[in-house]
Order: sequence, then C-alpha cells, then structure tokens
Amino acid sequence: MRALILGGGGMVGQRLAQHISLNGLGGQPVDITLHDIAFPPVKIAKCTQVIGSIADKGVAQALAKTKPDVIFHLASIVSGEAEADFTKGWAVNMHPTWELLEGLRAEQESDASYRPRVVFTSSIAVFGGPYPDKIGDDFLTAPQTSYGAQKLICEAMISDFSRKGFIDGISIRLPTICVRPGKPNAAASSFFSGIIREPLNGQEAILPVSDATRHWHASPRSAVKFLTHAATIDTELLQGRRALNLPGVSCTVAEQIEALRDLAGNDVVSLIKPQPDSVIGKIVEGWPRDFEPDRARALGFSAEVNFKEIIQVYLNDDLPKPA
Amino acid sequence: MRALILGGGGMVGQRLAQHISLNGLGGQPVDITLHDIAFPPVKIAKCTQVIGSIADKGVAQALAKTKPDVIFHLASIVSGEAEADFTKGWAVNMHPTWELLEGLRAEQESDASYRPRVVFTSSIAVFGGPYPDKIGDDFLTAPQTSYGAQKLICEAMISDFSRKGFIDGISIRLPTICVRPGKPNAAASSFFSGIIREPLNGQEAILPVSDATRHWHASPRSAVKFLTHAATIDTELLQGRRALNLPGVSCTVAEQIEALRDLAGNDVVSLIKPQPDSVIGKIVEGWPRDFEPDRARALGFSAEVNFKEIIQVYLNDDLPKPA
Repeated sequence: MRALILGGGGMVGQRLAQHISLNGLGGQPVDITLHDIAFPPVKIAKCTQVIGSIADKGVAQALAKTKPDVIFHLASIVSGEAEADFTKGWAVNMHPTWELLEGLRAEQESDASYRPRVVFTSSIAVFGGPYPDKIGDDFLTAPQTSYGAQKLICEAMISDFSRKGFIDGISIRLPTICVRPGKPNAAASSFFSGIIREPLNGQEAILPVSDATRHWHASPRSAVKFLTHAATIDTELLQGRRALNLPGVSCTVAEQIEALRDLAGNDVVSLIKPQPDSVIGKIVEGWPRDFEPDRARALGFSAEVNFKEIIQVYLNDDLPKPA
Repeated sequence: MRALILGGGGMVGQRLAQHISLNGLGGQPVDITLHDIAFPPVKIAKCTQVIGSIADKGVAQALAKTKPDVIFHLASIVSGEAEADFTKGWAVNMHPTWELLEGLRAEQESDASYRPRVVFTSSIAVFGGPYPDKIGDDFLTAPQTSYGAQKLICEAMISDFSRKGFIDGISIRLPTICVRPGKPNAAASSFFSGIIREPLNGQEAILPVSDATRHWHASPRSAVKFLTHAATIDTELLQGRRALNLPGVSCTVAEQIEALRDLAGNDVVSLIKPQPDSVIGKIVEGWPRDFEPDRARALGFSAEVNFKEIIQVYLNDDLPKPA
C-alpha cells in the first residue's frame, strides 16, 4: 500500500509517518511519501521526502499522477497566517485541494479500479458563534476566519468528489492539537501549547487571553490515531456526511493551568505571564469551546478525557530529556 | 445607482430587472446591466444587455471592473445539468464566483470607498438529509448534489470576502421557484412547476415522483421580493452569518394537486400523468422539505402562505392570455 502525506514535514505529518512506518495501516505495510515545503533535519521514518509547494502550478496534479492508495492532506498555512495574508491563505489552503481532486478524478476516470482514500485535516474553525453549550453533529458551519472558510470549502469539494465516486474521502475536524512540541508558530492557537510547554522547559510563556477562555483540545498522539482511523474505516458508515467533528477535551485556560500545577507544581505555573493580545483574543473568541461528537465516537474515534492526560502525553512523548 | 444582474437573461433575472427598472432599489433609480449567455427576444426592461459567459476567462474580472453598486449573482447551470456534467457544473457554478470576488477585491483595494452589495442566489440544495421535520436556522449544510456543493462553496467565499470588508455580501437560499412560466428546464425540480403549468395550459404533464413528496416553494414574485430586500437590508443585522434560509410554502405534491383542483377543476388535474423517474426521484428525495426560517422572517423576508396563493400568482402574472 502506498501513502502520500501532504504537509508531511509538519509536526503531525512527521508523527503520522513514524507511526505508519512502524505499524502499517489496517494491517498492511505502507510505502510512504512525504511532501512539504521543508523537512526537519533528522528523518524520523523510512519514507521518501519530496520538497515542493502544492500551491505551485502543476504540483498537486503531478502528485495525483503517482496514484497513492491513501492521501493524508495535512498541507495548509495556519489560521493566524491565513488571516494576515488573505491572498496566500486562499492560494495554499483552497486552490491546491481543487487541483489535487481534479488530478485524482483524471486518474480515476482512466482507471476505474483506482479510488484513493483521501483523509483531509479540517478544523473546528469551520464553526462560528453564537454556539450552543455543546456543539452537536447537526450544527451549522459558519466560519469567522479565512482559514475556517477554506477548510469548509475543501470539505465540500471532498464530499462531492467522493459522492461521485472519484475518491473515497473523509474530512476530520481536528480539535486544537496540544501540547505541540517545539517552538511557537503563527497559529492563533499557538499559546494553548505554549503555556504548558514553555514552563515545563523552564521558560516564560505569554498568555494572550483571559483564563476563562474555554477551548477544545486533543494531543498529537490522538491526532495520529484520528488520521489512521480515518484512513481505514468503512466510509459507507458516514452515510454521505463525510465531515466529522472529533472527540476532544473541553476545558478553560484556568483548568489547563490547574492540570499543569497538579503535574509540575507552582514554580512551573508561575512562568505563565498574562499579557492580553486583542488580535488573538478576537480570533479565539470566535472559536468553538465544546462538542458532543456522537457520530465520531460511534465510528470509533477517541481522544483524551481530561487535560491532565494531554499534558501527560507531552511529558511521555515530547519533553526534551536532559542530555 | 448601478446594478449588475448576472444570469440576467433567466426567468428570475428578467423579472428582477423589470421590477427594479420600474421601482428602483431602496428609493433610488437604478441603471441596470444584464449579463447572460442569451436573452429572450423581447426586452422587458430598460437596461443594457451584455452577452457572454462568466465561465470564460477574464469575463468575471472585467465585470468587476465596471464597479456596480449592487451585483445580483443569479448565474448558474441548474441542478440536473450540474449533476449530469460534473466538469461544467464546477466550471460555471463555482470558479466564476471566485474570479468575480477577486475582481471586486482588486477594485476595493484600489478604492476604499467601493464596497458593493453582492446578492447571491444560493439554494436549499446546500442541505442534505437526514432532516428534522423542520430545518432550523442552525442546521448543518451537507449537500448531496454537485449543485448544492457549489452553492455552499460560493456562500463561504462570499461570507469571507464580506467579513474582510472587500464586498458586502448576502447569500439567500431560495426555495424552489414555482410556478415557473414557459417551458420545462433541466432542473430536477422542473416538474414541480410543470404539473401546475402544463395542465393550466391544456397540456399533459409528467409527474416523476410520488405524490407524497413534500417540498419547499415560493413564487417568482417572491423571488424578486427576496432579491430586492436582500439588496437593501442592513447586513450588520446578519451578525456574520451571511447565508439565509428564506420563507416559503411546505407542501406535498398531493397538496399541490388539490390546490390546482380547487382553482381549476378536475379536468385540469386529470392532465397530470404519474410516470416515476428514479433519477429525478433520487435527487428530489435528498432535498429539504420544510423550514423554520426565523432569522429571515425577523429580517423582513416573506413569501406566500399556501400553495393556492402560489398558483394564484401564476394565474395573475404568467398564464398566457387568449389571443
């Protein structure tokens, strides 16, 4: 089986590659190709790395021509960048998905036995308030960021190409992935990881929003589980609704901080420095806070059950070990 | 004030042009340009007619350069055709909207005082079952036709371009417009008009679905009211949710037929010939049947209250008069 990971140089893409190179997919060994604009210096899995931008002319189509059995489409610029650079956001987060789908359709039309599974990482940013206390599986999408609009549009394309039988797609609306290892990024959600990660590494972290801010989280380990599960489930069970809200942990920033205090103590927590940022505050305010993801649970998707578990995953998988 | 009607050669576009050439918009006289691939032989309103396809390269952008104050975007191919010709559906119903919006953005960026009202005719085909008895304003969009997917995507683009201040857009999800005058068309919904119109004109009409089929209707007269109201309301009241479910009449085909019997008698009704068509049946089965359009009503949108009223509109406005 051959898998292509678009955005394979990113944090989640790298972990996904590592996981399926070790465990295969659905019991089968996988020949993995990663595509991204850049890769980390150390290769963490047995795979082919291809450097390029799917936003460049012809790239998505050329990737389709390689006829992968499974395509994990994780390639996008993050919410903060898509909001700051309108042109780039649409150029990276929307148009290449269309080109990819058209490329796959051409392959399918010339070889009826070819119908790749496409797993698209969508986002809870497809939603917009006002929200009910918990967002159910029937709640409307009304994105309030360009990133969310772009994700929603890709979902709609993937659903329609799937309905027509050109691909077999599924869009999974990831919670905010937390605690991300490494450095802060341009995502407006970056601080949700930063306020845990930096203090655990002895560094100060800026908290740009009120600690009453409630949000929806899952760990990088859950992200990999979501992706591999989405790649192997029977999509007939989706009954034509191919975009899914996923399980996660709903908690406030104050609850995140208390979980950190429980696991690491007051000194660590004291490294969190509140410093309100109205731009980030406005974006985050528009995001969903809690879900009732019944469909995804019934389909076998699962995540952590509280934020302490999420920090524990970071401590186990990612905290840099003393030299 | 200058208005551009894309799809201005179509039935609704023509009536809209006639209405605003007589009544203006929001109390102002309107200089009207119609754009379409073809026009009826008789010009029914004072306006400029431009023949062309918005799907042709550069056309949507050139139209944007004319800087209309209001753009009514009614241009699309119908559901049945978009389902039968996948390539053409996306080429006409999705990509030109993107080109138009990018063109308008360029104008807005070079002239901050320019921010046109864009009224987009979306459709209840953005929805997909299973449905609640009545679809509320918070119900998810899950299109089950390419036409519905294309409309949903245009809505998302229009919302995001509006949120960013490049345009001032609103998407109105029209009920099935019924009774359409003239000839049947390639829309899967065409028979909803046909079973009323043909018998009233002494001709047989095919009924391709069960008479238990429930659907959501409004008259051409209501369509014009929806459009002019959407062109003139304060969009701040939309609070960021710029796609609206509109009022209409929910009734079964049997109820349509009984309304026809009431107004025109048994002989007319006997011209309706049931002849099940599984392709049409499958498309229509996936469509919504009833709504609770509270937001639109609160914003001042209104339609007929029963199907008899809808037939009465046809009898008043459209039934060909004896020579």
